Amino acid sequence: MNIPSLESLVDIVKEAAGLMVTDGFDISQKDGFANIVTSSDVAVQSFLCDRLAALLPESGFLCEEEDMNDTSRELTWIIDPIDGTANYSRGIAQCAISVALKHAADIVLGVVYLPRTGELFTARRGCGAWLNGRRITVSARPFANAVMCTALPVYHKEHTGLCSAIIRDVFMQCNDIRRFGAAAPELCYLAMGRCELYFEYMLSPWDFAAASLIVTEAGGMLAGLDGQPLTCTRQSGVIAANNKENLQKLLEVVKKKVQSSF
Amino acid sequence: MNIPSLESLVDIVKEAAGLMVTDGFDISQKDGFANIVTSSDVAVQSFLCDRLAALLPESGFLCEEEDMNDTSRELTWIIDPIDGTANYSRGIAQCAISVALKHAADIVLGVVYLPRTGELFTARRGCGAWLNGRRITVSARPFANAVMCTALPVYHKEHTGLCSAIIRDVFMQCNDIRRFGAAAPELCYLAMGRCELYFEYMLSPWDFAAASLIVTEAGGMLAGLDGQPLTCTRQSGVIAANNKENLQKLLEVVKKKVQSSF
Repeated sequence: MNIPSLESLVDIVKEAAGLMVTDGFDISQKDGFANIVTSSDVAVQSFLCDRLAALLPESGFLCEEEDMNDTSRELTWIIDPIDGTANYSRGIAQCAISVALKHAADIVLGVVYLPRTGELFTARRGCGAWLNGRRITVSARPFANAVMCTALPVYHKEHTGLCSAIIRDVFMQCNDIRRFGAAAPELCYLAMGRCELYFEYMLSPWDFAAASLIVTEAGGMLAGLDGQPLTCTRQSGVIAANNKENLQKLLEVVKKKVQSSF
Repeated sequence: MNIPSLESLVDIVKEAAGLMVTDGFDISQKDGFANIVTSSDVAVQSFLCDRLAALLPESGFLCEEEDMNDTSRELTWIIDPIDGTANYSRGIAQCAISVALKHAADIVLGVVYLPRTGELFTARRGCGAWLNGRRITVSARPFANAVMCTALPVYHKEHTGLCSAIIRDVFMQCNDIRRFGAAAPELCYLAMGRCELYFEYMLSPWDFAAASLIVTEAGGMLAGLDGQPLTCTRQSGVIAANNKENLQKLLEVVKKKVQSSF
């Protein structure tokens, strides 16, 4: 098994971040106002694919901005060139380059880098989760003092009622809610103890693949909305928590609302 | 009328920010997990009150962390030593020192400073709104492409159903929702065009006084939940928008939901 070093991946990601210009990018709508792509997304992805293919010639790619869905290889790079493109386009800090390397069914490397804050989250399977070279762990806060990062379903507005009901129910039992507008940074915040819970109705693999390793290496847990393990090659609802007890409690709210929505 | 310069106020606020230590602060609960105060809040407020009283001896104070509600003077400092204390205590970027000077019924100076991002928002009545010395204005985005910053009512959880219904209705008509967890930074984001709409069920004067001047000087508008002008000496629900048309549209949703909740 030929897994590159975290350092070699980090070097490439940081170089790619130089393509996330603050001004002067073009915005295109993919599907209405909510689903946009910028020229920066395209440039970052193209750079990453070139450099990561050179680093690991036998690898395949699963990326947001193109149909490059070759997941048949043993090693697959799962890439979101800019997670939080809407934030990026509006000058908001929470946007990130997210790159994971999948070996067979496991994510073995994960890097989430927020160039606007300088926060670099990294994990190698079995070796812990790190923020700018400092080991991070989830918080020990109980459910009643938990903050949940979440979202209303911006690409699936027909499910707003369900998501709103789940968020409302969790809010009544926890401390508070946040919505920073980008999944990978929010999952990394959970990994470092800024928040304790996470719920989103539907994410793509590139939104959560890298961050999922960072969360588990920091001692947290993730699951699909049915409580089953996540599969990093397909879309999925995602819940996450700082420990098993809180994940279970969150799952109960989600399951109850999902069932009563049918 | 003896209004100090913005520069003299900025110098004091930046010096106060040195008391927002990143580690080593104590957290006390004021009323459950959601309403906390840290030793930093107390230190910042004490410093600000001392220095601002020296700057303007005839002024009174209206502050979050103590009952200093002397609003009988012609000039009143309205101070939130740390807006977004929960964010502050969790290491999240969106927390700010917020200081306004009220002359009679008008806010005449407003400073909102986020030490963790280095963003300094300032306004002097009639002289525009500024971010780190650069003039800012609201965005021109229409309602359908608007992002709304909002919150569920963490200090008034009995009104969660109403707030949730308002947020859901706006979400169906706009682009997306954000919840960064601090009112003053979110209102400043509206002033600089990162978002277009704002709704919160209940704020205190120190949450919105300084930011309200920054919003209006940037070309935006604010109102209470009944559409009436805000009064900066009492608690109020707050809506804001980048223009009159969008404020009116937001107000219609709010009014309809508030009326149907009785």
